[in-house]
Amino acid sequence: MTVPPYADKIHNWYLELQTRICQSLEAIEQESLKIDLYKSWQAQHFEPKKWKFNQSGGGQMAILQNGRVFEKAGVNVSCVWGEFAKEFAEQIPGAAVDPRFWACGISLVIHPRNPFVPIVHMNTRHIVTTKSWFGGGADLTPSIPFDEDTLLFHQAFKQCCDSHDPLYFEKFKAWCDKYFYLPHRNEARGVGGIFYDYLNTENFSTDDNFNKDVGKTFLKTYPAIVRKRMEMPWGAFEEDILLKKRGRYVEFNLIYDRGTQFGLKTGGNPDAILMSLPPVAKWAA
Amino acid sequence: MTVPPYADKIHNWYLELQTRICQSLEAIEQESLKIDLYKSWQAQHFEPKKWKFNQSGGGQMAILQNGRVFEKAGVNVSCVWGEFAKEFAEQIPGAAVDPRFWACGISLVIHPRNPFVPIVHMNTRHIVTTKSWFGGGADLTPSIPFDEDTLLFHQAFKQCCDSHDPLYFEKFKAWCDKYFYLPHRNEARGVGGIFYDYLNTENFSTDDNFNKDVGKTFLKTYPAIVRKRMEMPWGAFEEDILLKKRGRYVEFNLIYDRGTQFGLKTGGNPDAILMSLPPVAKWAA
Repeated sequence: MTVPPYADKIHNWYLELQTRICQSLEAIEQESLKIDLYKSWQAQHFEPKKWKFNQSGGGQMAILQNGRVFEKAGVNVSCVWGEFAKEFAEQIPGAAVDPRFWACGISLVIHPRNPFVPIVHMNTRHIVTTKSWFGGGADLTPSIPFDEDTLLFHQAFKQCCDSHDPLYFEKFKAWCDKYFYLPHRNEARGVGGIFYDYLNTENFSTDDNFNKDVGKTFLKTYPAIVRKRMEMPWGAFEEDILLKKRGRYVEFNLIYDRGTQFGLKTGGNPDAILMSLPPVAKWAA
Repeated sequence: MTVPPYADKIHNWYLELQTRICQSLEAIEQESLKIDLYKSWQAQHFEPKKWKFNQSGGGQMAILQNGRVFEKAGVNVSCVWGEFAKEFAEQIPGAAVDPRFWACGISLVIHPRNPFVPIVHMNTRHIVTTKSWFGGGADLTPSIPFDEDTLLFHQAFKQCCDSHDPLYFEKFKAWCDKYFYLPHRNEARGVGGIFYDYLNTENFSTDDNFNKDVGKTFLKTYPAIVRKRMEMPWGAFEEDILLKKRGRYVEFNLIYDRGTQFGLKTGGNPDAILMSLPPVAKWAA
């Protein structure tokens, strides 16, 4: 059996992190009540939505829609297990010999309404086949970048990485730049962050702690960046830039993103997998 | 050398078809001047835009944007040649032994503004490696389907197919249904049409004529369907259905469409390849 003995413990951490992230974004929705810019919209809460995996397990999505600061924010925790399809198993470490897997993780994408507030993605996960590893990352995609925000984001994850291994940050930052790239556009998706996969130092609790710290770092840094930008007024010009940036985000997620491919190919819930898609996007001709 | 002796002749046919299609859609833009529904928008013309392929050849896009009836219509003719990348060559008939190719074709996607007017796609192409073949198809994607329009579209292509081979229609219609399908949504992209590939009866002019007839059939049927629906008033409810249908269209094109993959993997012009993407699309949470 592939379900590890610590399954509930790790699953509960992801659920706890989900709750904390949702509360933190809901607090921003409430704070925005005093900002006139958002007067056309209502402050919103996250709506939970459970779903079942077509094999075993399932997940709990939390979606905030049509809010004041957040046009769409989706935070999904999934804990699924079963067997990989044969052709897919060959691409997954340890699955060629035995296709059974267990996977648990959290994934979020936030689409703010204000073009000065960056889009963000964060994901951490633990996967078990005949091998086991951690993976994850966080990357920032501003429509209108501010060096100051980029620096803040990178510094936060540098500090997080450095407290675990002095080699992590440089490696995971480069991996992020390489991964979140649209070759057909010769364009980076955003301004980067960190990306890691197949992490297994053979010390489970060390790796588990690093993975947890990535989640905590997200909680410390993204809301701070939102608060710095959310009072900046915008107009149709900036909105157009935002909607086109979202178009690029859709291109990346549907053409290249491995999490999306993983989900769609393992028969996952399309609503949960494609929760990352923006509410509205534009393409220039 | 892979450039066939009839290269110019076939390329010119595609350019001629492009002109006729553009004129036919521009005529609808003009007719709409008397329809009050479209008073907020200007009638538009197609703007030509030439592009160069990163190996040899290139293309000519024609794009109509922000029109009255057509929010975006893109008709692209490309005629490119060079060598396939090794890993890609293995998937293309005749290219594993010699990676050189020549490809010429026309491709269009039309995104109407009125949710009662269906989205449409048409493509015909001729590809030469050490083998050579024709491919193409046309399929209708109504946001709000009318059986009457679906029937008209299918009947037109049935007539076109039947005049060439009594077995074509059934085969190409089934291929279309199978191809334009979103497995992750358990959903057809639209109401179908025809799709064919690797067509080579060993009589070049027979196949060439069939390919040309597919283009002519498009010209006969789609504008007629547009004219039947373009005067139907719509509101926010129907517009929402349209924008979400476009979201699905984006999913299909970026995740599954072979033409898109072919273009992106051969280093084609991303603007021409992704011309099929809608100006705006929506996703429900």
